[in-house]
Amino acid sequence: MSTAEGAIDRSVDVAVVGAGMAGLKTALELEARGQDVCVLEARDRVGGRLKPGHIAGHRIDKGGQWVGPQQTLLLAQAADVGVESYDQFNTGRSVLHFNDRVKTSRSEIPKMPFLSLLELQRVVSRLDRMAFSLPPDAPWAGPNAKALDSQTFETWITQNVRTHAAQEFLRLVTRSVFCCEPQHVSLLYFLDYVRGGEGIDVLTGVSGGAQEAKFRGGAHQITELMAAKLKTPVMHDAPVRAVLQHDDGVVVRTDRGDVRAKRVVMAVPPALANQIDFANSLPAKRVHLMQRMPMGTVIKVHVAYERPFWRDRGLSGMAVSDSLPCNVLFDQSPEDLSCGILVGFFDADAAVDFTSAGDNARRDAVVEAAKTFFGPEAASPIDYVDNDWLAEEWSRGCYVAHMAPGVMTTFGDALREPCGRVHWAGTETATKWQGYMDGALQSGIRAAGEVADRL
Amino acid sequence: MSTAEGAIDRSVDVAVVGAGMAGLKTALELEARGQDVCVLEARDRVGGRLKPGHIAGHRIDKGGQWVGPQQTLLLAQAADVGVESYDQFNTGRSVLHFNDRVKTSRSEIPKMPFLSLLELQRVVSRLDRMAFSLPPDAPWAGPNAKALDSQTFETWITQNVRTHAAQEFLRLVTRSVFCCEPQHVSLLYFLDYVRGGEGIDVLTGVSGGAQEAKFRGGAHQITELMAAKLKTPVMHDAPVRAVLQHDDGVVVRTDRGDVRAKRVVMAVPPALANQIDFANSLPAKRVHLMQRMPMGTVIKVHVAYERPFWRDRGLSGMAVSDSLPCNVLFDQSPEDLSCGILVGFFDADAAVDFTSAGDNARRDAVVEAAKTFFGPEAASPIDYVDNDWLAEEWSRGCYVAHMAPGVMTTFGDALREPCGRVHWAGTETATKWQGYMDGALQSGIRAAGEVADRL
Repeated sequence: MSTAEGAIDRSVDVAVVGAGMAGLKTALELEARGQDVCVLEARDRVGGRLKPGHIAGHRIDKGGQWVGPQQTLLLAQAADVGVESYDQFNTGRSVLHFNDRVKTSRSEIPKMPFLSLLELQRVVSRLDRMAFSLPPDAPWAGPNAKALDSQTFETWITQNVRTHAAQEFLRLVTRSVFCCEPQHVSLLYFLDYVRGGEGIDVLTGVSGGAQEAKFRGGAHQITELMAAKLKTPVMHDAPVRAVLQHDDGVVVRTDRGDVRAKRVVMAVPPALANQIDFANSLPAKRVHLMQRMPMGTVIKVHVAYERPFWRDRGLSGMAVSDSLPCNVLFDQSPEDLSCGILVGFFDADAAVDFTSAGDNARRDAVVEAAKTFFGPEAASPIDYVDNDWLAEEWSRGCYVAHMAPGVMTTFGDALREPCGRVHWAGTETATKWQGYMDGALQSGIRAAGEVADRL
Repeated sequence: MSTAEGAIDRSVDVAVVGAGMAGLKTALELEARGQDVCVLEARDRVGGRLKPGHIAGHRIDKGGQWVGPQQTLLLAQAADVGVESYDQFNTGRSVLHFNDRVKTSRSEIPKMPFLSLLELQRVVSRLDRMAFSLPPDAPWAGPNAKALDSQTFETWITQNVRTHAAQEFLRLVTRSVFCCEPQHVSLLYFLDYVRGGEGIDVLTGVSGGAQEAKFRGGAHQITELMAAKLKTPVMHDAPVRAVLQHDDGVVVRTDRGDVRAKRVVMAVPPALANQIDFANSLPAKRVHLMQRMPMGTVIKVHVAYERPFWRDRGLSGMAVSDSLPCNVLFDQSPEDLSCGILVGFFDADAAVDFTSAGDNARRDAVVEAAKTFFGPEAASPIDYVDNDWLAEEWSRGCYVAHMAPGVMTTFGDALREPCGRVHWAGTETATKWQGYMDGALQSGIRAAGEVADRL
């Protein structure tokens, strides 16, 4: 259920700000406990960073889409609402465009010089070991936290990785996973994210990894079905402007009116929570944390062809580049193969470069990448669609917030700490699969429990 | 002139948001060109990060206070409104508390082992040379910008400075100048700030440096007198919530009503501009820059004694520590010496630790520092006052915004770039003495010229 019309004037047990997966899960969990809940959403749709779209007549996800076998909360949630997953197409050789040369590879790890490959395997193992040694609930409190948080991941790369190809591959991993450059992110934050995602191979992998499968009908559908299960409709077009705490409750002020509640759960990323007026009621540490969790920069693109012609040549459609602005592509063809679709990304600095370049420049760059990877047949797409997440008013970036050096050790312990009657959800607050749908669900379950304990 | 009552409903040439020194300068410059201006201020006072206060019956600055001989815009502005400067007391030996030992020194550079001192001089020269080679208008575009912006200043310290004392001194410099730890700031940003402040010795120095003098009656008075020269009163208690751009102008929406203008100058730090609703009219690059310029963390403290007893012992009152939370003190005694006053700071992480600790804990820590530096007489203050800048709703930190690694090279060119009818002032946008009153004035002059060219 949802509504986007009329003035809002309600009193409930709990107000939930944000109807992304985290907010919806919070609300469902609270309703299951018998609480009266009101979900407030700035957009005219649910889903937040999950967003429905179409290309060449086929339904696609313009936002988050993949699920891995480790993401058990997400798999359970999808099953609960009756959405099936199916495997990401991954048959055939992948393409690597490195140093202006195109190579193909049978494995998901792209072909690179033998020494680079050996080093990459060693370095990935080392990073994983460093990641798995962090305390999951408080990575800022580990014995080595300060040193790990004092440097950028780029610094670590240049000082610990010798071969050019292995260095570039780690930069590519950072761009693809965090939507930022390795200099933007703290080594500690990088490692904590790797810990939450069960290691670099799982994070970046298709078969057995976080890109193993996708949802029939789109991941966004899961949030629509979650919203449909709510007893009270999601209030749409209701951006929250202020949260005012009083002795006996909170007033959540939206463009459509007020909701009075005993407690409020902010199920939005820190950068969006930071734009809400809390009338100076938050502890300074929280205020400063929210100044320091910027969203990544990414533009997600889809390009459609008459046929998935790359498959004819034994290619999986998966391709990466160390230099093209559209630096990652995957096969996104419909299951009936009635056309061929590629999905890809402008990540990190490339997204910043292309956000103001306009649709045509982006389309050209995507087609150019597809031609480079898959040959001249890629020159003639039948459709093109992109989604510039940098410019989305109610996300202000994607996939996720990141932390620069020093932020986690100085401000990190404010991440989940309730501030009076204000609680914090959202995938950024998860202790596992943070940045993913699975982390969003975990955060909703945790926040609902936190609130229920205090009602 | 100023007003804090009644509804606002005005049409002017230019709206100026923020009545700190930058906004007031912008308004004065525009009025001098014959423009009709309206200055909107969230607080009930002008001055922004300049703030009046009292201790033991004496007027003090709870915000910015010092002026150096290089800050010619500020000296001219003070002269223009008839505010005199006088020298910071700096006679006698300074105190250094390092490695739990207290030493005194005749020079402003504290006493440290000879090898450390030699290294420190060499390292400071090297940093200065690196700083002075940056292009002032576009430090992100220098030949070495990417490498300098890929690391934290802490990384540079640990890799380029060998002696413990020299390392600790550079950390102390970072805390004192930026109000953040060296891991929070990009090496490139650090260097650009050093360039703007004419080198590390000038930035950190008293005689001949940025702490050479202060203003009789307080620096804050300059902004009061600037406001008094405006033809139109500053509108107080009018926090700006939205800036809406139309084809023929802007509407600036405040809690007290609307101002319609041809153009608007945002004379507030990026972190505050980021909280205003621009109805998605800003380029994504600007939006992302504002997510990435957090304010420093500092609590400014004053403690008063019957007499400036430290002077009897040949001490200047200047003291620094590598471990005490209140890590810097200066003599702030009134010119008539009717009592003794010390001014100091909790900087960077120490400020974060003490923001929620409460006044008493802060007072105790300040007295403890004064006792450590100046002996047991410091145990009996007659008054204590502090100002927690982290918790100030309309500053959200001080002295200034900083940039983490990668921010300047990815987003820096959006810093001053007008966005349609929206222009950017504030000390963070200056190309010289950014972070200081002088930089605020420069930004106001530049923004006024920019707007006047387009009216």
